Amino acid sequence: MTRASVVGADMTTFGVHERTLTELFATAALGAYDDAGVGPDDIDALYFGNAMGGQTENDTHLAPAVASQIGLAGIPCQRFEDACATSSNAFKNAVEAVEAGVHDTVLVGGVERCTPETGLGTGEMTRIFASASDRYYEQPTGLTFPGVFALLTKRHMHEYGTTEEQLAHVAVKNHANGTRNPNAHFGKEISVEDVLDSPVVADPFRLMDCCPFSDGASAVVVTSDDNADSFDEPVDVGGVGHATDIVPLSAKPVIQATQAARDAASQAYDQAGTSADGMDFAEVHDCFTGAEVMASEAIGFFEDGEGGPAAAEGRTAIDGDRPINPSGGLKAKGHPIGATGTGQIVELTEHLRNNAGERQIDGAERAVAHNLGGDAATTVVSVMEVRE
Amino acid sequence: MTRASVVGADMTTFGVHERTLTELFATAALGAYDDAGVGPDDIDALYFGNAMGGQTENDTHLAPAVASQIGLAGIPCQRFEDACATSSNAFKNAVEAVEAGVHDTVLVGGVERCTPETGLGTGEMTRIFASASDRYYEQPTGLTFPGVFALLTKRHMHEYGTTEEQLAHVAVKNHANGTRNPNAHFGKEISVEDVLDSPVVADPFRLMDCCPFSDGASAVVVTSDDNADSFDEPVDVGGVGHATDIVPLSAKPVIQATQAARDAASQAYDQAGTSADGMDFAEVHDCFTGAEVMASEAIGFFEDGEGGPAAAEGRTAIDGDRPINPSGGLKAKGHPIGATGTGQIVELTEHLRNNAGERQIDGAERAVAHNLGGDAATTVVSVMEVRE
Repeated sequence: MTRASVVGADMTTFGVHERTLTELFATAALGAYDDAGVGPDDIDALYFGNAMGGQTENDTHLAPAVASQIGLAGIPCQRFEDACATSSNAFKNAVEAVEAGVHDTVLVGGVERCTPETGLGTGEMTRIFASASDRYYEQPTGLTFPGVFALLTKRHMHEYGTTEEQLAHVAVKNHANGTRNPNAHFGKEISVEDVLDSPVVADPFRLMDCCPFSDGASAVVVTSDDNADSFDEPVDVGGVGHATDIVPLSAKPVIQATQAARDAASQAYDQAGTSADGMDFAEVHDCFTGAEVMASEAIGFFEDGEGGPAAAEGRTAIDGDRPINPSGGLKAKGHPIGATGTGQIVELTEHLRNNAGERQIDGAERAVAHNLGGDAATTVVSVMEVRE
Repeated sequence: MTRASVVGADMTTFGVHERTLTELFATAALGAYDDAGVGPDDIDALYFGNAMGGQTENDTHLAPAVASQIGLAGIPCQRFEDACATSSNAFKNAVEAVEAGVHDTVLVGGVERCTPETGLGTGEMTRIFASASDRYYEQPTGLTFPGVFALLTKRHMHEYGTTEEQLAHVAVKNHANGTRNPNAHFGKEISVEDVLDSPVVADPFRLMDCCPFSDGASAVVVTSDDNADSFDEPVDVGGVGHATDIVPLSAKPVIQATQAARDAASQAYDQAGTSADGMDFAEVHDCFTGAEVMASEAIGFFEDGEGGPAAAEGRTAIDGDRPINPSGGLKAKGHPIGATGTGQIVELTEHLRNNAGERQIDGAERAVAHNLGGDAATTVVSVMEVRE
């Protein structure tokens, strides 16, 4: 079933930008207008995501502010914040609204500034990021996100024998993919040895197991199934699942399961009338290498415990049988928090239009995006497909 | 037309609380469950609002966190932030989702901590509040919200001859109403002289023209029209309008018009098949006395320029012909930012159930809630009515 269609998509490069939040978002938004062949008068609402602008630069209530700069003042504009899943939730709500006929055509996107261009260093930014973990049981212990995902990954290693070398293969593959993506933060190939020789951040993660702090923005134009044929190159949204998991980490029955991802994937596949086997590739939330391994299992690409070996065997490479993160993922493409979710939708759109250049997944007809927030507490999974 | 129904409603007192965000929200949420006669298993999604938790206590991604404490882990949970209109936007999205059949029954609400219980003083909190104004043109000048609304009000005074004494009557009336509301932050009557003798904050506003910083939470259970008859005392949502206005203030053609409120009110009345004349009372966003005067005109209770005289003549009192803010409004009930929007919905629900005690608007059958955010840049207007 087609729930809605993406008819325009664009993003800034993810990396270091000397531009304001508003300028960054406007760049992506105007690009999405152009790609869709629309102007502001064709847009009925803005579903906007930003995670940390209040903390990083005392800038909240951003939806009307960015709307004012891209010709959208007047229409309903709203901000979503759900940690790293921020703009994925904006996308989910937009798809629901368009499908329901609340709006015909909407703009969805997100923006974030996380680099020292904000005036904040790595330590302060790490503290701000940690605001998305549990406030009462985790933050006071000094736990930050490398530690959160290290705990999940350590349990995965304990249960299934996943190795640091397997994790390193995720980073190597994503860096290789990033060299083929002109929008990626990192454009350099690395080796397994490079990863294993890099300094430990939070055992088992080394520096090169971790995604960077990035600045960037992404935006897509979403319209109804009925409207889609009046646009060039629409790509259909078959399903969007959304689930939460209990917090804090200590309350989760099986922490490495990332249960919300399983629930959200199941919803998305059911809505689209398909399954993991029907997917030609995936974009997943690889904030750390271990997160990609767990995601690859949660979305059903591999059995539990097979994610690590699959990465090491090259099965998740662009030319593998189950490609994951052809964009380079958060690891190499970059991770401007609020922009990451719709950034994944941009990537799926490019491949399903056969327009992804050197990183194109040949003949891709269906793909899935997995994005999580916080202690794997929010997950949104979206299935997109070539329009028939 | 009935778009959805409110079948449960509760709130904490607004004031100073020695409780965490999670505890405050849980108090309101569990109260709303009880009022509706539901449990967590009956709730399909959480539409949650918080405006400033990231800035005040480094706490973001709060939707799954609060959900985990009230039995909702697993279901879709999302946070909205649109400054003071935060939980009004959550309510709008919830009504749309329920009306569309995306969900049957959802919990909607918001929470905020703004008092020194956060560890932050008035100066720092004022700076944080200002994050909802324009980041590039207004914040750097030192403009904060008393100044923003002073500029709008000064223009209103210039255009229409609105006086400081008329403004003072708004405060006097809202304090009087607050004494009848056991949930109100302030429970003390004041006089016009008290207001006019209080120190100037931002001309024309004196201390007693300004609403307080409050802690508090509010929550409502929203279900579909089809489901509503299976609950005791449903109250119908006839319409919810939502519009934005351009920012910064200097870009607005007629700043005292608060145009987004006019657009949102028009939408809400149209959806409900009614007009301002059909409303038995209103709850409006009176962060400052001048804001209530402008709101009373924008929602059509009075012609432009008549809001000030109407307040002075007692027409907006509980026993007046156009009652406004029987709760005491933000001025006396209090203003815990993220909780204010659904707090208004709680108040409407109480009156339309004929359950508002000493402040009951006799025979109220239809009412309107007006809530704005930032530089009057987001406004949500909701019309509710007794179920037939």
